[in-house]
Amino acid sequence: MPQPTSRRADAARNRDRILAAARAAFADGERADAVSMAAVSRRARVGMATLYRNFPGRRELLEALYTEEVDAVCAAAESAPDLAAWLRAFFDYFTSKRHIAGELLTHVPGTDPVFDGNRTRVLAAGRPLLEAAQRAGEVRGDLSLEQVLDMVIAIARIEGDVAYVEPILDAALAGLQP
Amino acid sequence: MPQPTSRRADAARNRDRILAAARAAFADGERADAVSMAAVSRRARVGMATLYRNFPGRRELLEALYTEEVDAVCAAAESAPDLAAWLRAFFDYFTSKRHIAGELLTHVPGTDPVFDGNRTRVLAAGRPLLEAAQRAGEVRGDLSLEQVLDMVIAIARIEGDVAYVEPILDAALAGLQP
Repeated sequence: MPQPTSRRADAARNRDRILAAARAAFADGERADAVSMAAVSRRARVGMATLYRNFPGRRELLEALYTEEVDAVCAAAESAPDLAAWLRAFFDYFTSKRHIAGELLTHVPGTDPVFDGNRTRVLAAGRPLLEAAQRAGEVRGDLSLEQVLDMVIAIARIEGDVAYVEPILDAALAGLQP
Repeated sequence: MPQPTSRRADAARNRDRILAAARAAFADGERADAVSMAAVSRRARVGMATLYRNFPGRRELLEALYTEEVDAVCAAAESAPDLAAWLRAFFDYFTSKRHIAGELLTHVPGTDPVFDGNRTRVLAAGRPLLEAAQRAGEVRGDLSLEQVLDMVIAIARIEGDVAYVEPILDAALAGLQP
């Protein structure tokens, strides 16, 4: 039965094209709330019906993009040599994907299952790194991963270019040492 | 001529009563944008005409309150034994006066002369403390006071109670050491 397979492949291709188009729209520096579904449909060269069949609204589209980014952050935790390296990757991710990440940053915990679920995944991915660093005496024992990530996110939100914000991150990460 | 003097004293008393009423309204945990001019007028027991003669609008009232708070932060810089002590006072000020401070925190530099002027005053008050700490080798030389304050403000904005946020501040302040 080749047809269902190919239909599934078409559907997957459409979904990927939509996500790529949305990612490109955000990367162009547009604010998340200024990227319309119509603009995504044009960029992806899929009809509005196809777009809405895949993503019932902007929120679902943002959530899917966001989930992809979280996948990358979790994968980075697997490959990072230590906690500090992962926190720097996490920081770079937040500052470079500010438009999408902004949706998370302004999100109040407990109000959205997708964002909450992704936060849980990030915490699960990073926890072994923090525990290893604390066991090795490289990181203060009185901080939880939630606190460490909230610190990095807070610094990532500071207005200013990399040259301005990076020394602040350097200082804060140095302060994680006992 | 006792009359003009007494009229000036009355005017000053009214202004003080209005500011005290507004401060109390914000301290009650009301959001800055939920405190109306009418509520301030009732609390201060002055007529709306008197209120508006003193403060043409909510913004002017907030600015006056904010200026008073900045006076306190600047005075704290005079009496603080060192930079870290002042930064902790600054942090306490921001977390306890969150409702008023929120107006500053969300303020984009360069758009409001009152807020910009107050920022300049805070920077001027704190600079001797940072310079002394850097001369004594107690604080990294690669950070400006703007960067240090932005770090403390960013941490003050983290959601959570004191027990959650204070260890984050402890870590970040420890990281200021070279």
